[in-house]
Amino acid sequence: MGKVSIYFIRHGIAADRADYDHDGDRPLTEEGRKKTKKIASKLNDLGLKFDLIQHSPLVRAQQTATIFAELGYPIAECEYLAPAGDFKQWLAWFRNWHKSNTKPGTNGIGSGDRSLGLIGHEPDLSAWAEILLWGEVRSVLVLKKAGIIGLAVPEPGEPIANSLMFMLVPPKILL
Amino acid sequence: MGKVSIYFIRHGIAADRADYDHDGDRPLTEEGRKKTKKIASKLNDLGLKFDLIQHSPLVRAQQTATIFAELGYPIAECEYLAPAGDFKQWLAWFRNWHKSNTKPGTNGIGSGDRSLGLIGHEPDLSAWAEILLWGEVRSVLVLKKAGIIGLAVPEPGEPIANSLMFMLVPPKILL
Repeated sequence: MGKVSIYFIRHGIAADRADYDHDGDRPLTEEGRKKTKKIASKLNDLGLKFDLIQHSPLVRAQQTATIFAELGYPIAECEYLAPAGDFKQWLAWFRNWHKSNTKPGTNGIGSGDRSLGLIGHEPDLSAWAEILLWGEVRSVLVLKKAGIIGLAVPEPGEPIANSLMFMLVPPKILL
Repeated sequence: MGKVSIYFIRHGIAADRADYDHDGDRPLTEEGRKKTKKIASKLNDLGLKFDLIQHSPLVRAQQTATIFAELGYPIAECEYLAPAGDFKQWLAWFRNWHKSNTKPGTNGIGSGDRSLGLIGHEPDLSAWAEILLWGEVRSVLVLKKAGIIGLAVPEPGEPIANSLMFMLVPPKILL
């Protein structure tokens, strides 16, 4: 199946709630856009390459994903990444994606290692990461806007309560 | 009591085991020294200031601590940070240190926020962090040499199964 690294990326700084009738319409601020661009290109420079980036349908997540798309990564909207989205539905998708790996490995045939980005919202992203780490939500991870959590998913096998965390990077470290 | 941030820092890259009769005598390699210096000064530039750095008595941890001391941080040897060291004894020390805070706060009197660095070894450091996060060792955190885990300890109150993780930074991100 190849190993999978999952990167949970919180959207960048967005406009105030008070200024928009619908929360989902809030765009990134100019500062949010600038910082997110810097962070995306720093991650790219560090050798982090995404095979796919899924993002929440909300404008601020979509705009964050577009910044990554400008670096050449394929992005795709994923409704399960909306606030309070359905983790089980996403997990079903993920198992299927994990299994259907046709990326060439170092031996030239399918099952190379892959990286998946998930751009969404708190507290959902850190809750999903916690379920993959230890099977339940403990709310002990602090993920700031444009911050990133990196998990290594076992190959093959059950990801829940079975993944490892190798990264929780606050945005200021990447600026 | 003031808030406390605890930074668990793994020693830098050390000489091969095969070259030393006693594991504790292994020094940092030239590469380990260079990378650790870069990381320490990057953390310093990011505004991370340590009120105290405790380190394991082993040479590689002591040398890592000395690199931080050159930036002006006070360091102190702590036997509990040796491999398989006694977490309960350390915790008793920590509770006392936490309580006896006389650092001026923003109001000018005692109880300012403090930062504590712990330089030691794996798997102990990440096991200690896990106990503070969720009360037991799950071995799901990956802490590389010269990598750093940052936890926020509640103020006041029980740190075990009650702290938050805001940082797990692999060394390559800080180089």
